[in-house]
Amino acid sequence: MSLVRQTVKTLLHEGQPGATVTVAGWVRTRRDSKQGFSFIELNDGSCMANLQLVVDAGVPGFESNVKRLTTGASLKATGELKASPGSKQRVELHVSSLEVLGDADSVKYPLQKKGHSFEFLREIAHLRPRTNTFGAIARVRNCVSFSIHRFFQERGFLYVHAPIITTSDCEGAGEMFQVTTLPLDKLAAGTATKSVNYGHDFFGKKASLTVSGQLEGEIYATAVGPVYTFGPTFRAENSNTPRHLAEFWMIEPEIPFYELADNMQLAEDFIKTIIRDALAQCAEDMAFFNERIDKTILETLNHILAHEFKRVTYTEAVEILLASGKEWEYPVSWGANLQAEHERYLTEQHFKQPIIVYDYPRTLKPFYMKCNADGKTVRAMDVLVPRVGEIIGGSQREEDLDVLLTRMQECDLNPEEYWWYVDLRRFGTVPHAGFGLGLERMILLLTGMQNIRDVIPFPRTPKNAEF
Amino acid sequence: MSLVRQTVKTLLHEGQPGATVTVAGWVRTRRDSKQGFSFIELNDGSCMANLQLVVDAGVPGFESNVKRLTTGASLKATGELKASPGSKQRVELHVSSLEVLGDADSVKYPLQKKGHSFEFLREIAHLRPRTNTFGAIARVRNCVSFSIHRFFQERGFLYVHAPIITTSDCEGAGEMFQVTTLPLDKLAAGTATKSVNYGHDFFGKKASLTVSGQLEGEIYATAVGPVYTFGPTFRAENSNTPRHLAEFWMIEPEIPFYELADNMQLAEDFIKTIIRDALAQCAEDMAFFNERIDKTILETLNHILAHEFKRVTYTEAVEILLASGKEWEYPVSWGANLQAEHERYLTEQHFKQPIIVYDYPRTLKPFYMKCNADGKTVRAMDVLVPRVGEIIGGSQREEDLDVLLTRMQECDLNPEEYWWYVDLRRFGTVPHAGFGLGLERMILLLTGMQNIRDVIPFPRTPKNAEF
Repeated sequence: MSLVRQTVKTLLHEGQPGATVTVAGWVRTRRDSKQGFSFIELNDGSCMANLQLVVDAGVPGFESNVKRLTTGASLKATGELKASPGSKQRVELHVSSLEVLGDADSVKYPLQKKGHSFEFLREIAHLRPRTNTFGAIARVRNCVSFSIHRFFQERGFLYVHAPIITTSDCEGAGEMFQVTTLPLDKLAAGTATKSVNYGHDFFGKKASLTVSGQLEGEIYATAVGPVYTFGPTFRAENSNTPRHLAEFWMIEPEIPFYELADNMQLAEDFIKTIIRDALAQCAEDMAFFNERIDKTILETLNHILAHEFKRVTYTEAVEILLASGKEWEYPVSWGANLQAEHERYLTEQHFKQPIIVYDYPRTLKPFYMKCNADGKTVRAMDVLVPRVGEIIGGSQREEDLDVLLTRMQECDLNPEEYWWYVDLRRFGTVPHAGFGLGLERMILLLTGMQNIRDVIPFPRTPKNAEF
Repeated sequence: MSLVRQTVKTLLHEGQPGATVTVAGWVRTRRDSKQGFSFIELNDGSCMANLQLVVDAGVPGFESNVKRLTTGASLKATGELKASPGSKQRVELHVSSLEVLGDADSVKYPLQKKGHSFEFLREIAHLRPRTNTFGAIARVRNCVSFSIHRFFQERGFLYVHAPIITTSDCEGAGEMFQVTTLPLDKLAAGTATKSVNYGHDFFGKKASLTVSGQLEGEIYATAVGPVYTFGPTFRAENSNTPRHLAEFWMIEPEIPFYELADNMQLAEDFIKTIIRDALAQCAEDMAFFNERIDKTILETLNHILAHEFKRVTYTEAVEILLASGKEWEYPVSWGANLQAEHERYLTEQHFKQPIIVYDYPRTLKPFYMKCNADGKTVRAMDVLVPRVGEIIGGSQREEDLDVLLTRMQECDLNPEEYWWYVDLRRFGTVPHAGFGLGLERMILLLTGMQNIRDVIPFPRTPKNAEF
């Protein structure tokens, strides 16, 4: 059946009037003319636009089949492509035969009327990709994902699959989910020793879901050259906000022989390439977001493309914030974390463009970041963009064995638990650097969507793992 | 630093004699000539081959730095590229300056000598990518992964991220890992009710790691057109075999308006494209596998490319097995599962090529596979290849609501727990089909490696989740 089907996208862009073609998809609307025609707007997900089907009363089954078609019903139709008299689309399909594949009860089908709230659509996440907004998000998300792969492949990076289940805790990047095959019901009844015997668990010790693939990425970067991971990561934080997910996708490049300045340039090129690809390859969807979701989206993205990301040290950033005369909810002082309000002021109001803040106080950052000679700061970098705030976090890594061990001590970490990570500095250590991009944050930036639960197919959040 | 570094791969293929270049990487071997030169074989992971560095005694630090370089040490070197007098490589680097980045203690570094067993290398999975074999596997795995993305992107499929944490159990495709934030230590001390209160767990109910993204893939396929997933999947089975992992990567395309024959053709094109890309893009690595791991690899792969996959019904397959006169460990009869011994006989001895077995007894297969009119079989398909056996499993899906509900009853499943899946048949149902490819099985086929733990960076198996 598929072998003769053509997509709506292909027909709208390349279909030749006069050609006989077969299409299949879902009815968005049907209206009947007084002259005995039916006009069907057919969508197959290949693009935002629908193909108009013109069905006249002479088509077999017109009364019994065509007239029963309602929103959401599926069909297959064959006919002749003709130039469309309307200006809305280039061609339309004059149907000669039509087969109803599946009805959609007009009372029970939840997507009858337009204009459902995003909150409601989250409850029917199995049907929301059939709407314009979520179809467009699916296409943009696909475009971004492939753009990311292409970006790294063109630069000779190897895609590496970091493990999802791990027994390391990656320096407390966040709360972790436990993974187990122990029978919780039996545990709840109490054990003789009143403690958990992990010797009986699947992995023989306590195991969790990864919060980052960086440390494993470093293993490969110091063996096969530049690499990147692209996989799911997890946070068991009880954060019910529009910006947090318990399960999200992260991209983490790691590059040997890179110093912080190289890392910054790569991050900038990376973000700009993704934006450029989305604008070029999803033009119709991006126009939709600009029209319906946030009328500043295209302007914001083009502005980002037009300017070099401004590099600002943490110390300079603090001085700017102190000099701003603003009243902050969280006080600003050297040594304190930059909060969202500070980051947004810097990128949205002060610089009015993306910035890269670097050289943060070492007390704020994890053990693996390279220490600067000043003894106070580390070679960390955060990329901040208007509207979203922090979109990338990264650093040059500490490649000196002694300094790394000192930092682990400062951070109360046991080097023996990180024996393999320490080995990378013990044997043929090299300068290296990397960063992480949260995929969903990038989609928020591109689409103007406000809630991160709406830019991932099936969001996992506290008390919610449906579908 | 990176900005001036050139990779060994680029220099060996495109480097112009006379050019001044900088390289960085790890020492594979160093030998000193009687004339006072040192020859260093430098590898940077960009390809299997090393670049030969020629360092004469006049290079600054020759005695103190160059002479201390041992296997595994890292360095950066600048010099002039010259045509190599030897036939082994086109060019070599005559070094003018060299900086040692990191030593590798020749006593402690575990990769000193060649010829370590794969078992031993699994214990040092953080260093094994520095070996020829595991560097080659990393490059082939990357090539396959990107080939998969390109294959689907070129055909207009959207990449969809299926959820990893799930509260559905996908028809018992396998044992599942539980994901929890409940305090197991407290549970082990016993609870007042002697049972687990999942109301206190992160997701408010029992949650697990996914065994397949298919059902969620169907959601998107029936909304936005052809899709594929590419993500980690999990089995909590206590299988200590060279063919099983607790965590592996799976690719699952799902295509609306596809019937079984279309699905078979897609699977065949898919496998062949991956093989063709690996042979073309990783020629050097593939030659290595053919030379060192399995001398029949290239022949096997070219044979697969040269023949159309043979389509064989399950019933025909059973007849062939019965007529073979072979003695089987597991008896053959219509209605019994095909075992590895049967599958390998069919593909390796009887047909001597990849085959697609289809139309399996419905009692052997999950509820979602489309029932044939014979009342006995379902539109399932398995792709079997020589040496590896089953590499792809798939089916046309049951799109008829009533038949699906009957099948769920037969399989003791509660339709209410699958309400969203059933909805896809209730509203605008369409014929559709899909399949799953285990990435690691594909890499076994390509490389000739025998143990699946060696073709994933960090294998997770019973009692083992190190790194």
